[in-house]
Amino acid sequence: MPLETPPGYQALSEETLPAFLNALPAVAGRLGGGPSDWTVSEVGDGNLNLVFIVEGPDGDCCVKQSLPYVRLVGEGWPMPLERAFFEHECMRHHGAHVGALIPEVYHYDPAQFCIVMERLSPHIIMRQGMIKGVRYPKFVEHITDYCAASLFYTSDLYLTAPEKKNIMGVFCGNTELCKITEDLIFTEPYMIAERNRWTAPQLDGIAEEFRNDAELKVAISRLKLKFMGLGQALIHGDLHTGSVMITEEDTRVIDPEFAFYGPMGFDIGAVIANLLINYFSQDGHATPDDPREDYQTWVLQVVEDFWTEFRRKFVALWRENGRGDGYPAALFQGAEGAAALDKERESYMDALFTDTLGFGAAKMIRRILGLAHNIDLEWIEDPDVRAACETRCLRLARDMMVNTGRYGAIGDVTAAARRTRAEL
Amino acid sequence: MPLETPPGYQALSEETLPAFLNALPAVAGRLGGGPSDWTVSEVGDGNLNLVFIVEGPDGDCCVKQSLPYVRLVGEGWPMPLERAFFEHECMRHHGAHVGALIPEVYHYDPAQFCIVMERLSPHIIMRQGMIKGVRYPKFVEHITDYCAASLFYTSDLYLTAPEKKNIMGVFCGNTELCKITEDLIFTEPYMIAERNRWTAPQLDGIAEEFRNDAELKVAISRLKLKFMGLGQALIHGDLHTGSVMITEEDTRVIDPEFAFYGPMGFDIGAVIANLLINYFSQDGHATPDDPREDYQTWVLQVVEDFWTEFRRKFVALWRENGRGDGYPAALFQGAEGAAALDKERESYMDALFTDTLGFGAAKMIRRILGLAHNIDLEWIEDPDVRAACETRCLRLARDMMVNTGRYGAIGDVTAAARRTRAEL
Repeated sequence: MPLETPPGYQALSEETLPAFLNALPAVAGRLGGGPSDWTVSEVGDGNLNLVFIVEGPDGDCCVKQSLPYVRLVGEGWPMPLERAFFEHECMRHHGAHVGALIPEVYHYDPAQFCIVMERLSPHIIMRQGMIKGVRYPKFVEHITDYCAASLFYTSDLYLTAPEKKNIMGVFCGNTELCKITEDLIFTEPYMIAERNRWTAPQLDGIAEEFRNDAELKVAISRLKLKFMGLGQALIHGDLHTGSVMITEEDTRVIDPEFAFYGPMGFDIGAVIANLLINYFSQDGHATPDDPREDYQTWVLQVVEDFWTEFRRKFVALWRENGRGDGYPAALFQGAEGAAALDKERESYMDALFTDTLGFGAAKMIRRILGLAHNIDLEWIEDPDVRAACETRCLRLARDMMVNTGRYGAIGDVTAAARRTRAEL
Repeated sequence: MPLETPPGYQALSEETLPAFLNALPAVAGRLGGGPSDWTVSEVGDGNLNLVFIVEGPDGDCCVKQSLPYVRLVGEGWPMPLERAFFEHECMRHHGAHVGALIPEVYHYDPAQFCIVMERLSPHIIMRQGMIKGVRYPKFVEHITDYCAASLFYTSDLYLTAPEKKNIMGVFCGNTELCKITEDLIFTEPYMIAERNRWTAPQLDGIAEEFRNDAELKVAISRLKLKFMGLGQALIHGDLHTGSVMITEEDTRVIDPEFAFYGPMGFDIGAVIANLLINYFSQDGHATPDDPREDYQTWVLQVVEDFWTEFRRKFVALWRENGRGDGYPAALFQGAEGAAALDKERESYMDALFTDTLGFGAAKMIRRILGLAHNIDLEWIEDPDVRAACETRCLRLARDMMVNTGRYGAIGDVTAAARRTRAEL
């Protein structure tokens, strides 16, 4: 029996999409010609949704539609259509501040739970480029602009409390997507769970070790509690390198359907985690003709620059636009007030760094011991080589999560990554 | 021009209330007889609402109705009628777990924004009893039952994340009441603000000192950020001794219209703060015939017992009913898991203790330098005596907020209170 959907909802297809778009003058005009001139191809390679690319004589667009279930699994795992609503809401709120760092939205259809948006071309998924060893010289500049603006402008540092609570109240409805994160990232990798998988038998030992590691389980549970309880900003919620479409010149963040009011460190940690996973995975992609040592050096440089630039930009936004109810300007007048607030901003960023390391570590572990893996590692064919890369990644992550206080600066993280790779 | 209200809303009066209640069979039946047999008196001595006591031949009730403005100030300070909705929602959620520690609700009327509830008699406002030096031997037992249950059962330790977010989303609408707290407690006492008042000129110096105290302003701003961002539990939001109706045998918590998902320490700190304010105020109420030294000893004992018992009960509830998504039971199986979780529970309570001290200090300061004062202190007629009591209270609060780490246990707080009283 098919899952129940609201009246009027119909999963779109390559056949039905042209008529749907033809009813949207702004979109039809952009494509040019008529429906018979448009070519449609379904390209969704993600886990959840339908994604179509539509090309017309004058232009193109991308259509993303929710299905009432997880596409990867099928109807056995129902998933609310409303995730398209939350994705669009997030794009609306972030879009006001991050400009062209996300795709332009042409139309949101609440009945079909679909977003018609800019088609990104010749962009590719950043993760795929990184697996090939492609460098993106503008990535740090762009992603730090995105992170600093999306987080700052939705935080208590910029918004009044009622402005924030109004948005937060809406995203309190995005419980089912949050629940996926709560289960798959913060819980299941640390217990015996049906959905877990890992490179077996090579990682059987470390997987068991993690399941019996009381310190680690306390640490992940603290992070989970923070994820569920600390509404710092409207976070993307799934900010890995698979949510970045990129060229050497341009960077776009996509897929914020997991968005909600949560801890900023979850987004920042996701970026760092996915860079570190790629770093460790390169040993499985290197060949004599294509050694990856230099690329690994570049990746760690990106990790360092990412945090450093994000921190600088976030603090700069705060200094310039700190109109929110948090740290109200009225309390920090004059030279002494300004100095005290400047010092406090550094403490704030230090705390965010600590959160970042914990959440980043959680993201690294779930990609190796939980349900959803990264192709950075999955595409390493030799299981022994893959397991070696994964083990290094797990060892570093465990230390970052449990001994977070030992990492005082981002250079300590990259140094630990280098050391872990050299020693294990 | 009167403030606009929704169609059908009408402020009730002693004249119109009987007809209103007569249309509610359950209430009319409880009162007995007919409307002409009922006596109605408006008794609202609070700052915000209309409150009526209705007595009939067989029974009685209390009716609390929102006005579209702050009663104390008038139409110049509009206030949303919906506060009655939030108060009733909070009573509903807490009521499921705290039983008769809050008044029984007979009827909620969404159009009139009014709650018809149990009339508490012969209860008095606890603050008024304490000013007279009355001891309440059951208070600690009852209020710790209330605090432990209301906070635990609405936290991530008991609820699943979707259960919690559903409630949280509703209370994200209670922004205007939260804003009062954000402004009057966390901001205005630390700056020049029209609504501030204090015992002048005696406290002019310390008020200015606080306004120039950068450490203190950073500390209060951190607390404010936590108040706005940390959704730990459905908190009462205004849990002072004026929100407690009491006899020697019975204790009821009223007036949760400030309720929202916030930090637990805000409620716990409110209780401790108001006990400490009373402690310091007793030197202004003592007379040769009615010395208050013994009473002050009792008050500090209540402070200690309150925290100790709350902590014990909260942890016990967590151990017995920790079914929530926080610290999931599945991760803490077996003897080693249980031991790790038990240790973590102590860390959790230590962190809550730290929050409690900060929020408690904030509550003490706002009652002396901000808009709303406590009659504990206000009823001291001699301004020099009052200012002396207030100064002690402010000195202790400042230390609790800025040097929180020095208070490792509740005994450190009561010792500091004694020391402050002896030395200043």
